[in-house]
Parts: sequence; C-alpha cells; structure tokens
Amino acid sequence: MYRTVNNGELRKEHIGKNVLMCGWVQKSRDLGGMTFVDIRDRYGITQLVFNMDNNASLCESARQLGREDVIQIYGKVIARASVNKQILTGDIEVEVEKLTILNKSKTPPFTIEDSTDGGDELRMEYRYLDIRRNPIKNNILLRAKISSETRKYLDGAGFCEVETPYLIKSTPEGARDFIVPSRMNKNQFYALPQSPQTFKQLLMVGGIDKYYQIVKCFRDEDLRADRQPEFTQIDCEMAFVEQEDILNMFEGLIVHLLKTIKGIKLSKFPRITYEEAIKRYGTDKPDIRFDMEFVELTDLCKKNNFIVFDNAELVVGFNIKDGASFSRKEIDKLIDFSKTPQVGAKGLVYCKYNYDETIKSSVDKFFSKNDLTKWVTKCNSSPGDLILIMAGETKDVRKSLSMLRLHIAEKIGLRDPKVFAPLWVLDFPLLEWDEESQRYHAMHHPFTAPKPDDVKKLHSDPGLVKANAYDLVINGNEIGGGSIRIHNKNLQSQMFKHLGFTDKEAKEQFGFLMNAFEYGAPPHGGVAFGFDRLCAIMGGSESIRDFIAFPKNNSGRDIMLDAPSKINNEQLDELGLKKIDQNDSSRNTN
Amino acid sequence: MYRTVNNGELRKEHIGKNVLMCGWVQKSRDLGGMTFVDIRDRYGITQLVFNMDNNASLCESARQLGREDVIQIYGKVIARASVNKQILTGDIEVEVEKLTILNKSKTPPFTIEDSTDGGDELRMEYRYLDIRRNPIKNNILLRAKISSETRKYLDGAGFCEVETPYLIKSTPEGARDFIVPSRMNKNQFYALPQSPQTFKQLLMVGGIDKYYQIVKCFRDEDLRADRQPEFTQIDCEMAFVEQEDILNMFEGLIVHLLKTIKGIKLSKFPRITYEEAIKRYGTDKPDIRFDMEFVELTDLCKKNNFIVFDNAELVVGFNIKDGASFSRKEIDKLIDFSKTPQVGAKGLVYCKYNYDETIKSSVDKFFSKNDLTKWVTKCNSSPGDLILIMAGETKDVRKSLSMLRLHIAEKIGLRDPKVFAPLWVLDFPLLEWDEESQRYHAMHHPFTAPKPDDVKKLHSDPGLVKANAYDLVINGNEIGGGSIRIHNKNLQSQMFKHLGFTDKEAKEQFGFLMNAFEYGAPPHGGVAFGFDRLCAIMGGSESIRDFIAFPKNNSGRDIMLDAPSKINNEQLDELGLKKIDQNDSSRNTN
Repeated sequence: MYRTVNNGELRKEHIGKNVLMCGWVQKSRDLGGMTFVDIRDRYGITQLVFNMDNNASLCESARQLGREDVIQIYGKVIARASVNKQILTGDIEVEVEKLTILNKSKTPPFTIEDSTDGGDELRMEYRYLDIRRNPIKNNILLRAKISSETRKYLDGAGFCEVETPYLIKSTPEGARDFIVPSRMNKNQFYALPQSPQTFKQLLMVGGIDKYYQIVKCFRDEDLRADRQPEFTQIDCEMAFVEQEDILNMFEGLIVHLLKTIKGIKLSKFPRITYEEAIKRYGTDKPDIRFDMEFVELTDLCKKNNFIVFDNAELVVGFNIKDGASFSRKEIDKLIDFSKTPQVGAKGLVYCKYNYDETIKSSVDKFFSKNDLTKWVTKCNSSPGDLILIMAGETKDVRKSLSMLRLHIAEKIGLRDPKVFAPLWVLDFPLLEWDEESQRYHAMHHPFTAPKPDDVKKLHSDPGLVKANAYDLVINGNEIGGGSIRIHNKNLQSQMFKHLGFTDKEAKEQFGFLMNAFEYGAPPHGGVAFGFDRLCAIMGGSESIRDFIAFPKNNSGRDIMLDAPSKINNEQLDELGLKKIDQNDSSRNTN
Repeated sequence: MYRTVNNGELRKEHIGKNVLMCGWVQKSRDLGGMTFVDIRDRYGITQLVFNMDNNASLCESARQLGREDVIQIYGKVIARASVNKQILTGDIEVEVEKLTILNKSKTPPFTIEDSTDGGDELRMEYRYLDIRRNPIKNNILLRAKISSETRKYLDGAGFCEVETPYLIKSTPEGARDFIVPSRMNKNQFYALPQSPQTFKQLLMVGGIDKYYQIVKCFRDEDLRADRQPEFTQIDCEMAFVEQEDILNMFEGLIVHLLKTIKGIKLSKFPRITYEEAIKRYGTDKPDIRFDMEFVELTDLCKKNNFIVFDNAELVVGFNIKDGASFSRKEIDKLIDFSKTPQVGAKGLVYCKYNYDETIKSSVDKFFSKNDLTKWVTKCNSSPGDLILIMAGETKDVRKSLSMLRLHIAEKIGLRDPKVFAPLWVLDFPLLEWDEESQRYHAMHHPFTAPKPDDVKKLHSDPGLVKANAYDLVINGNEIGGGSIRIHNKNLQSQMFKHLGFTDKEAKEQFGFLMNAFEYGAPPHGGVAFGFDRLCAIMGGSESIRDFIAFPKNNSGRDIMLDAPSKINNEQLDELGLKKIDQNDSSRNTN
C-alpha cells in the first residue's frame, strides 16, 4: 500500500495517528534545526516536519528534496505550532519518521502555483504539469462534476444514453468534415461526425423516445480564437414532443446544474423571440445580466440637418446608468473602440444627462435642448445617465452597438461571472440568405421544421419562414440550441430543394434518413449543448481551453504530442493515397 | 402535448381515466363490431378498442391502419373483457374517442417482432426498425444502465472522468491506426486513438490520481467475426497503487454491476496465474462455470508403443462427468470437430469409464486395463465418466483441447448465460516472441512494468520476465485487462530498446511520455474493460453487434449509411492528397 491518507484529509482529530502519505514537493524551508516540506496531491497540501535533533540523516535527506519530487513518507500527525487558516489541513503537521523518494523531478519549466510564470505555449507543451496547478485541476474536476450531474438529471428523466458511431459518412453540407481513409474499402472514406444529428433522429424513428449522449464532435474549420477542431456536446432528442416540452425539460437541466454545481436557485427563464432579441440587444445571444436595452431614436433624430442621422436607416442608442460621470477621455476611448474594424461603427454620438439636469451632447449644434430632452425621455434616463447612439444600416448598426454594450458592461463591472442569467431565444428564421453562394442556407440545419403556418411561405417568401428553433443563452453565450425536426419525407425533400440540393445529392447524402421517414417516423425535436462552453461559463471563464484536459492550439495542433505529424509513406500506400507534390500540377479531377 | 401516458403505464387503478397516447401500430384485429389495435412504444403495449356501434367512421379509420403507422389517440381506460397476463397493461384497454394518424408507414421489410424474419444484412440496413424490436431495444437500454452504474460506482470511489482527445498522433506500433489528414497542416496527419493509454498515464503524472472514461477507441484491423473498427472501453487509471489496490477496486466494480444489473451477489473472485491457466485450461481466458480441468497424462502414457503418445511433448486430457453415455456417433463427431482446421488436433483418444466399472478406450490395443485404470485414477473419474485425450506439441495441444473443452461444455449445457464466473488471471509474461518479425513484442503494451525482481532478466532471459499484468475473465471472455506501468524514464527507454525501437523512433513517438516521466511521475497502473463485450456478456449473449446501436458489418461498413463512401476530389485536393491510380506504378517512396 502506498498511502493511508491523502493530503487533504488530516484534521485536529487525527493528531497522534500514524500515517503513510504520498505527494509532490511543493516547497521546503529550513528553519534552524527544523525542515518543513509541503507536499501536494489532488486533494490538498500537508506540511511535513523533519527535526535535525531527532534524526539528522533523515533531515539531511529532506533538505535535498527538490520541487515536484514525488515522495512517500511515514510519520505521526502532530499539532502545528503556528496554525495556517488558509488550508484545511492547517491545524496539523506530520512529523516524518521515514522518507522514500518515489521519483525525482527535474526543475519544472514553470512554477506549479495558482498564478504561474508559464506562457500559454509552454503550459500546453507540458500540459501534465499545468494540470497539477489548482486552477486547471479544479476546472477538470468541475467538468467531471457537470458531466455527472447532467447524466443524473437526464437518467432521472428517463433518457437513455446511446453511443452513436464516430466513423460515418461524409456529407459536404455545412462545415468541413474530417475524413478518414478506409484501408479495407480502398478509395473510400469515413467522416468524423460534426454532430450525431441524423443518428439521434433515427433513434427517434427507432422508438428510443428520449436519447442523450455526451459526445465528441469534429469540425475541420479554420479555427478562430477559442474554437477546437474536436469539441463536446450534450446531445439530446425526444419524440412525441412539442417545443414547449423540450424547453421545459432542458430548462430543468440548467436549473439542476446551477443548483447542484453553483448553489444558485433560478426559476422560470425569460423567453424572447429572435426578432425581439435583435431589436433590443442587437444580437441573438443577449447578455441580460444588465439592462442597457436598445432604444430606437430614428423618428426623433431625422430632419435636423445632421446628415449622419438623416441618411441612416436606423438611429439607436442605450442608456448607461450613472454614465454621465464618464470623463471626456473615457468617452473618447469608447468612440475609438466603436471605430475599430471589428466593431465597425462610423461614429458614436453621446448625450450626457447631467446631475444638474442640463444636457450635453456631441451633436449640440444640430439638436436643440428640446430635441435632446425628447431623447432623454425616450431612453427613460435619469440625471447622471449617459446615452450612447449609433446610426447607419440597421443590421450593421445593431451589431456595432451590441459590441459597445458588452464592452461598456465589462468596463463598468456588470458582467459578473458569478451571476447567471439564462434565457431562451425563440422563433429563429428557418433560412438565411447567403450573399456569397447567392442562395438560402439553413440557419440551424436542414432538418429543422418550419412553423406549420409558415410552410406555405416556403415558396413565396422563404426568408420570412420561421422555425420552431430555439437557443439557450447564458450571459451572452449561446450554450445550446435545437429545434423541432421535420419528420415527413416530402417536407424534407422540399427543404433539401430549397437548400440547393439536387434530388440525387439529397438521396446520396441523406437517403437513409428520408427512407426512415417512410416507416412511421414520430414527431420529434431536440437540443444540443456546447459542453466545453457550458463548463467554462460555470467555471466563471469565457475561455474553453482551460476546461479541456488536452486542448489544441489555434492551428489545431497538440503541442505536447506534436500532432498532427508526418506519417510513413507505407501507411499512405496501404490506403491507396499519395501526397500531391508541391510542384506537381496534376490535381485530382472529378 | 402529445401524450399524457406511455404504453407501459396503465393498470387497473387507471380505469375510468381519460388518456392521450401515442405509439406504433403493432397489430390489429376485427371482431364483428369491434376493432382491436395494439400500439407499442419503448415502454410497452396498449390495447385500443374501437366500437362500430359507438362511432362507425372512427372504427372504419382504425380498420385502415397499417403496421407501424404512428398514431395518437384520446380515449378512456376501461377494464378488459379477457385479461392478458403476458403484458403489464393486460388488465385494461383504451376505448378510443379520437384518432390522429401522425405518420403513415410503408410495410416494413421485416416483422417488428421479438423473433423476426429479417436477415442480418436487412436488419442492419434498416437498423432504425430493428431497434423497435424488444431484443435490440432491451440491449440498448441495458447498455445505458451498465454505463450509468459503472459511472455511479467510479464516481462514488472518487474517480474523475476526463475526456482525452480523439485527434492524436499516429504511432505505428501495434495494430494499425486510422489516420485523419489535416487540412490546416498540409501533409500532416492525426490518428484516432487505439486507446487513451498515454493520456491516462499523463493524467497520473498530472496528479489526477483516479481517472476513468467510457470512451470510443479505433483499430484499422482486418475484422474478424464480432470485431468492430470502433469499440468502447471503460478506461481507468490510478496513481500511488499496487496491483492489489487495482484488483480490489475493479473487482468491486464488477461485483457492483452484477448486483445492480443482474441481481447476482458474488464475493471474492478466484485468482490464477497465467501459467496455471494455460496448464489447467489451455487458455489465458478460462471459462470456469464448469470443471473439466486438464489432467496431464504424459508420464502415464509413454513407452507403450503408441507412437502418437510416445512422440508427444504433452499428453493431456479432461474428464467429462457422465460422459460415458455419449454414443459412438457423438464421440465420432467430437473427433471430427477436433480435426477441423480451426481446432487443429491430429486426433482424439477417448477412455470411457463405464457405469459397470469396465473401461473402454480407443487405444485398447496399446494400453492394458491396468494402464487405463491409472488414467481413470489420475483424472479422478467416477463410473459413468468419459476422458478425452489429445497429444502433441505442448502449445498446440493445449489450444486444441481448450477448444474441445468449450465445445463439449456448450453441447452439454454447461455454459449457462445466466451464470457468471469471473476470475483474475495474473502474472502475464512481459514479452512474447514473434516468429514473423523474429523479435519480442509487448504482450500487453510497451508501458507495462516488469515485476521488480525480474528486471535483471530483461537482458539475459527476456521471455521469462513476468509483469504485474492482469486480466479479468468472465465465462471464457477477456472482459478487461491492465497492468502496473513503468514510471521511470530509464526503464521505459530500456523497454523500447527491447521492443526494437531505435532511440530516435522512441523519442519521436513517445518522447512526450518519457519527458513527463522526468517531472515526478508517480507509481501508477490501471485497467481497461471492453464495454461492448461486457454488455453482451451481461445480456447473456456472445455477440457484441446487437449491443451496439449502429454497428458495422464484418467489412467495416455501415450498411445503413453506406459508409465508407467515395468523396469529391476537391475534398482530397484540399488535403493535399490524391488517389493512387490502379494502373499507376508511382508508389510513394520514403
């Protein structure tokens, strides 16, 4: 046996007990005749004490210990002279009688402390050392707990976990698939799933009326910051349900998680339509931990010879409580931020409603006191508030103002990671127009059902067709999304046509699903949650990478493994493949 | 809302209640003025009744229903005239007031009954229909339950579930990897993991001292019957443990599963060494639900001019209780079986110890009554028993006799799928000699630690080195296996050398792990269970395919999806790859 207790366990009541313990050397101090060594494991820290008077050679060995050496000790629990209230084992220390070095450690390339001196790349290369640090370790433990509580809730609600395959069929629609050459079926390829969408629908056809899976999905996309080529979903589907059933079931899941993981009790989540979200927050994933809702001022602003407003499709602003205290310099910074390329606003108008009830605006020369008073009234401002206004094309200006809203909320401390404000966004459009390909794309995916009343608009006015599609948003992050699906073969065929599939393509790629619809497919719908993001949000972070045990960097590389990497040409030969020579003009032809 | 109750719920006490229900039409019968329709869902079957006198047009609609149509009904629960004791809802029926056809079904290609007329390939093609059948549905539900109970036990024991990556580095050692070309890193490849072995070891180095994961693994091997290119493991690892700790922990898991899933209480599992298993059962995965242990007769059999025995390295047999009643024809069949190529025996000698205590053997002309009596004594036979004997090269004859042992046990009903007889097989050899490559291979994998006392034999006598490696065997199936791992860089380097790796290869493929060993790697070990097999065994079956929701066939194909399949050449172009033309002699060169 290697140990009888771990490093988080010992308390006052254990004083006098003999213990066998293991751990990593966190730090050591020599104080005259005494040497103190802190050892650490997953569970905590224990202070060991070696006494030169009692056993000089043992104490000498302790002095040779280096950071991160793994040791085993045998000793007696004693009361600590100076109690450490910072740690749970701070009442005791262990007087060591026997010391075994299980494995020496080289000096780690960064400090194994809560706040480390290691940079991102270095920490990724030595991820196994980074995991020893409390912040990362706690994220990993948190993730396991969220996973466990998710299963508890869904198992309890009668869901059946089903593993769907990872080696599936490539479907060129949507994001790019990772493909996997088959050796046994030469010149044929599997694909890794972007989601188990079609499988869960087949399970509904198969009668497994409540399905879930916590499952890896894959997308070979150019990675933006904080995206991973492999990511995890909580994937769920139910049969014989309407949207309302699904919203209630999965609102229950989030309530359960917030309660068991964070100790936060929430009741009914707010609901808002997609249209309303866009109008009130400029985004379909509003952060509603704070107000600053958009107020449309277009009517109040026109015909005052301020050409920016006169030419604008939309003039829209929001009110910042107590924002009048922003200095001129702070406001200039906000203007600069608004004009950055990623925000893309042409400018930013401000209107200060001072505590003395005077009004000061950056467009004073175009607008009278009376005009500005109307703005203040419309924005429901109080003395001391600040109104910020943008103008331009509706879509662009909403997007820019939404970014400004988040930026200011961040700046004035309204985005508290300990506050959780979930909401449902409903009634998404079924299709969205894609300028590049000059055709409609599925906003969610091609299996989403149009609202029954809107089916007739599919031909006449596809852009106006709404879907029973919904997103769960927490703190400005889309955490999950889903829809009621099509379960009728004809409607599904019609959808594929609208999305530009030929009959042949639809059949080749999704024939199995359309076949299934002919054998008594039940009405069904579901949802998928981004598990990495959910963990990050619950952990109070916006970055998913530190909630993944072995993440990849922004180029999709695992720095620790050095993957992807070259392979032997024999391996390619076996697969019937060869690399295209850089200088080789012989591309593949269809 | 689609339904207020499901089809497994209604009992006597619900009589008089109005219900809204959904389900698939299982069958319908017209009896004079009444039409009875059975509807089915995941939970059971409910009998609906339509009465021509009450509502003729409704009854007429019911008569139009076809098998597997999905319907919704509203009606009243009434007592059944003739109670059906076969089903839980057999006390009641539902008098239908409203019928809605949710989706029509074409006639299914096979019957949706417990015992179907569909062949394997057809059932695979329409897997979503096969899943509606009770046997498959119950397997899927059983699998979910086993998974859930596994997590419950491991979570309860302090294990942390960690997801390890699927896009990893290709390592040519062992079975073939599936490879995944990277688009962002041209001419570089990920591999899909054959197991998370190195990651779980890195987690141990990282201090996550109890890890588990129920995880998909991938092997691009030529598929034998009942192998799948993707399969699921319960993967576990612990730090600061000795073999004994691991055996106890995971024996506990199996005990927990057998108790919660099968209601079977087992105590301490037997343990046997690898050597002993081979000697006593001819295999390292003995089925110990029954005896028929091997008895070595070599000494008793030599020098009797029976050349087969005289030339044999080993003469070995086993005793079959009451086997003397086997007819001459039955024994001939056993002899034929023994000589089939897959068993590979040269012959089979029998020795009947008749109820009248006479002895009759197939080698009477070489052996006296006295000789045969010695056999009977050595085999501890009773009157009425039968001894079967094979002779030849030790390794071959044990293998053949082991197959005969299972064959006979099957034949005489000793392999009861309701009986569970787990055991641990211990002390596996570290290395095994591979004739083809003329070098030693790792019997388990290259990370398995030799027994400390045997390390010195690594150079002098590698074949004799034993490992702290163990298998869990249930009913003749290897359900899990594991080992204490190497945690010392030098020993790991030495192992790689013995396995024929150059320093460069070892570093390229496993450098990250050997680096990790230099930063305070703790002693550790673990185990992995074949989850598909475990589910099959618990479900009383030897075939894993029916315990996988969407399995692949023996050529690694998903018949339903028609995957793998061809992909567009544009997709290959993007990956910097092209197919090798069949007529093209330009192979890859290294």
